This record gives sequence, structure tokens and C-alpha cells, in this order.
Amino acid sequence: MTTLAEFQQQMLPAIDQAMQAVVDRSRSKGCTELHAMLAYHLGWRGEGAGPSAQGKRVRPLLVLLATEAAGGEWHRAVPAAAAVELLHNFSLIHDDIEDRGETRRGRPTLWTQWGTPLALNSGDALFALANIAMLELHPPHSAETTLIASRLLLQTALRLTQGQHLDLAYESRAQITVDDYWRMVEGKTAALLAASTELGAILADAPETTRRAYHEFGRMLGLAFQAWDDYLGIWGDAALTGKSTTGDLMERKKTLPVVYALTQNGAFARRWQAGEPRTPADVPALAQALEADGAKAYTQAVATSLTTQALEALEEAQPRGDAGEALRTLAKRLLHRQN
Amino acid sequence: MTTLAEFQQQMLPAIDQAMQAVVDRSRSKGCTELHAMLAYHLGWRGEGAGPSAQGKRVRPLLVLLATEAAGGEWHRAVPAAAAVELLHNFSLIHDDIEDRGETRRGRPTLWTQWGTPLALNSGDALFALANIAMLELHPPHSAETTLIASRLLLQTALRLTQGQHLDLAYESRAQITVDDYWRMVEGKTAALLAASTELGAILADAPETTRRAYHEFGRMLGLAFQAWDDYLGIWGDAALTGKSTTGDLMERKKTLPVVYALTQNGAFARRWQAGEPRTPADVPALAQALEADGAKAYTQAVATSLTTQALEALEEAQPRGDAGEALRTLAKRLLHRQN
Repeated sequence: MTTLAEFQQQMLPAIDQAMQAVVDRSRSKGCTELHAMLAYHLGWRGEGAGPSAQGKRVRPLLVLLATEAAGGEWHRAVPAAAAVELLHNFSLIHDDIEDRGETRRGRPTLWTQWGTPLALNSGDALFALANIAMLELHPPHSAETTLIASRLLLQTALRLTQGQHLDLAYESRAQITVDDYWRMVEGKTAALLAASTELGAILADAPETTRRAYHEFGRMLGLAFQAWDDYLGIWGDAALTGKSTTGDLMERKKTLPVVYALTQNGAFARRWQAGEPRTPADVPALAQALEADGAKAYTQAVATSLTTQALEALEEAQPRGDAGEALRTLAKRLLHRQN
Repeated sequence: MTTLAEFQQQMLPAIDQAMQAVVDRSRSKGCTELHAMLAYHLGWRGEGAGPSAQGKRVRPLLVLLATEAAGGEWHRAVPAAAAVELLHNFSLIHDDIEDRGETRRGRPTLWTQWGTPLALNSGDALFALANIAMLELHPPHSAETTLIASRLLLQTALRLTQGQHLDLAYESRAQITVDDYWRMVEGKTAALLAASTELGAILADAPETTRRAYHEFGRMLGLAFQAWDDYLGIWGDAALTGKSTTGDLMERKKTLPVVYALTQNGAFARRWQAGEPRTPADVPALAQALEADGAKAYTQAVATSLTTQALEALEEAQPRGDAGEALRTLAKRLLHRQN
């Protein structure tokens, strides 16, 4: 039997190698700096380079595990896995510019090191490279299958920008609804996870119903993941999650508990609208107000329900063999489930 | 006989219609603003919308005329023409952010109207849409041909970012060589024109040698165009070119005459390195120093030679029929040749 850890051990180096081979194409005669910037962002070089600077590679692992679980061969899907991870990283480079985010995976972001113009442009280069990576599916995959995969990646990129547009637009709105929140999450988080699992089914030449089931699994995984991420960003154990529990409130992020509580017009809404939190010291009391207004219980219930739906969606897809089991393990781990 | 003007009359509405149909996909449930931003940039709506805000559509016309001149049918190449024009416009949105350009085609740029974060993101959406447009070639074109066209567009996008990287990097360098200058122009200007004419040959199913000849024609057209653009930006007749003749020097752009003169270490180099021009009043004397150092004669000679090479490259491609003649007319017009 092959475990998730064993799959990761085989797959991660293959993903990394494919990513490096594509990113190497950003070098040109007389200019290596663009390549150096991308290699820095991707955690391959510069101060703090290494596994912790490279991210968890969840999306490419989903592509490859889904390929195997849907009856295909993961080796043949590596270009798609690389493409998905490069697209994710392109969106991070631009998001960091748009949000003025100064650190990413524990390191200074690209724009703080090279300035906004060069960083913006390097993100564009990575967008092109992500889509170039996908075209490497052909051969051995057919031109038709490669076009389907390529179209899916591009449509997903469009969805990412639609989600990001909403996220940015919401910043200047006093209140958004829970529906508004989910529309944003569908684009920003769920779309790329849905594309990742769907790509697995496509590259396994699975029938349309299986393809839809894998899409739905990735999508629900994304929604459930985001709900837990928002929950743990306020009530998580910082030591376990590695995430500050004051950050989300201090940054006045419109997370699910906040969006819900604002619709309740209780104590939290009054304090928030009055401009709290002003300092990190305000956060604990504000988190208590959030809980008193029912936002903690609400978010936990929603996250739990979405987790169940995500795992049910996976079963709908009837994932096969060891890779199917590894997919279950990965999903549960992402959703903080012990079993 | 069909003239260039008659081809334009047929082709421009078809190009516009295809662009609009693709850009319409940026609308999403609950959000029309992203679409509105793109429609503004593309000159379709908002203050000052109309033909003068839409650009000359040179690149998509090159795609369609080259398709016909290489023996294909222009109607079947319209998705590629739309893709090329959308990619060009994506690069303009991001260039304007990177260069802090405040006006474009006589109107305020996107970032000045919506702010940098939303404008940057809308450029990303247009990048995705440009590549989505290209995939519409199949059918009637085969999946194989569509993949070739798609790869060419993505590789061109990468070349654009390489050229833009150099352009941005040169800003902080006191001196660059003429070779450095051409490396930048190859990426920023020549690559997309070369791709446009090559796409025509690809979509006419022309043999490899014809395809290379069309590529070379577009590339030389781009180099020659840039040389004239730099020349006219200093010594042109503002009334005829519609371009200010103080702008390029005032913005301290590293144009061909400036790059050349800096390598001559004459009077111009001394004044430039001392920080001139400081005001528009400094420009005429600086332009005279440039001429005295031989930069005017040099640039004119280079532009003339490149023009000859571009027109020869077109003949190498053996363009056929009325479309071939229209291609000659268009090339000469772009290169300020009367015959």
C-alpha cells in the first residue's frame, strides 16, 4: 500500500522539477534578473529559500492524486500539476501588490524587494509560464485533451480575477452579505481547487459525470477550507495553526464570522463600525463580542457542514485505490479532521 | 480589387465584435464593474469612448491580412486577431501602472480612475481573456493548429514581459548600449508584431518557410517602426504625428538617438548626465546637441535601412492578391513611406 506521505515523496520532486524547467524559460540573453525574481518568490533561492518558503503544494498534489484515483497515470499529469501551482503563485505575487502584503511564507514579498513595477511584471511572466506549462501535456495527451485542460486553466484564472475584484471592492463597503462573501470565496479559493481535482479526471480520460464529481469535490474542499481558515484565524490555537489569531481582526478582514456578525447588528457590529480594533489589545474583547453574537457557533457549524459535504462529494467521485485513500487523508488533513 | 481601406471596413467590425464577445465573459453574477473597467480601457464606454480611444488595431489587421495573403480565409482567423489585440491591451494596462502613465489615447488611464489594485487585477483578467479568445479557433481550425497558435501567443506574452523588464531595469542605469536597446525593443515591440504576421501564415496552413518569412516581416516591421517612432518623437512634425516632440526627451526616455548619443560622449552626453532637460524650455537646445553629435543622421539611417529590410522581408513571404497589396500599403504607412 502507498500512503499519502509516500505519494508526496514521489510526486513533490517531479512537480518541482517540472516547475523549474518551465520557469527557466524566463531567462533571456542579457537578462537573468526576471528569472531570479521568480526563483525567489517560488522559494528556490535567496534569503530563507527552502521547503517552508515553497508552500505546501496542495493544488498540484490534488491534480496528481485525482489523476491516479480517477484511473489515470500521475506521471502524465505532471505538466498540469506544475501549471496549477505556477498559476497559484502568479496570483499570490499580484495579490501581495494589491493588498500591500509585506510578508509571504515568512519572507519579504517580491514587491518589497524589487519594487512594484518589476514585481507586477514578473507576475505577468509567471502567468504566461503557467499556461505554457499546461501545453506540455501534448504529447502524450492528445491536442484535444490539452486544449480542454488549457481552457479550464484560463477560465479559472478569469475566476480568480473576478474573486479578487470582489475582495478589493468589498474593502470600501461598510457591509457585505454572506452571499457576497461566498461569491468572493468561489472565485478566490474554490475555483482553483475545483480546477485541480477536475484536471485529474480530465487527464484520466474519465467520463463527464466523474469529471463533474471531481470538480465538485475540489470546490467544496475550497469552501470548507476557507470557512475553517476564517474560524482558526480568530479562534485557532496559534501554536498549532502557525497563524496569528489577532491578524484577521486587526486587518479588518471581512471573514465569515465578521460578515455574519455584521448582519446581526449586535455588540460586535457596533464596536466594528466604531472603528475597533484599533490596537492588538482590542482584539480579545472584540473576539468575545463576536462569539456572544453567535458568530463562532455559526462559523463552526458552517465549516463542519461544508466539511461533510466535501467528503461526500469525494465519495461521489468514487476515487480508486491507494491514491483515492491518500486523497481522503489529504482532504481530512486540510479540513482539520482526525478521521 | 479590394483596397486596404475596404479590407479595414470589413475586418474592423468583425475584430471588434469578437473582442466584445470575449470580454463579455468578465461579467459575473453580482459584479459588472470588472467588465466596465475593461470596456473603458478598450474605448467602448465612458468619457471619450469611440474610435480614437480604441487604437488603430494594427496588430489584428496584420493577422487577418497575413492570413489572406498567405492563402487562407480571414474570417476563420478572427479569434486570433481578437486575441492579439486583447493581449496588446493587457500589456498597456500594466505598462501604464508600471510607468505611472496618466493618459492613454487621450484619456485618463485605468489606474488613475479605479486605483492600482483594481486596475492591475483587470489587466490580469484581460490577459486570461486574450488567451481564451485564441482557443476559439477550434473549430473550424484543428486542435493541433489551435495549440500552436495558443503557444505562440503565450510565448509572445513572455517575450513582452522580458522586454518590459529590461525597459524598467534600464531606467536605473546611467548608460545602456545600442545592443541593450534592441534587446528591449525585440521584446516590447517586435515580438507581438512578429506573432501577428506569423499567426496569419499558421492559420493559412502555410509551410514552415512561409511561416518564418511572415514572422521575420512582422519582426522587422516592429524594429523599423520603433526606430521611426523614436526619431519622430524628437524631430517629427507634431502637427502630423500627433505626438509631442518634447515628450520623449522630457521623460528622459532611452530612445535610439539618446542611447546612440550617450555612447558618443559628446556635448549631448555631458548635458544629459548633468540632468538636462529640466524644463520643456531645455528641449530644443538638447535636441540640437543630439543632432550635432550625429544621433539624428544615425537614427534616420537606421530607420531607413530597417524599413528597406522590412519591405524585403515581406516580399520574401510572397504575399498574394489584394491582401498582399494591402499588407504592403499598411507596412509603408506605418513606416511613413509614401510609396
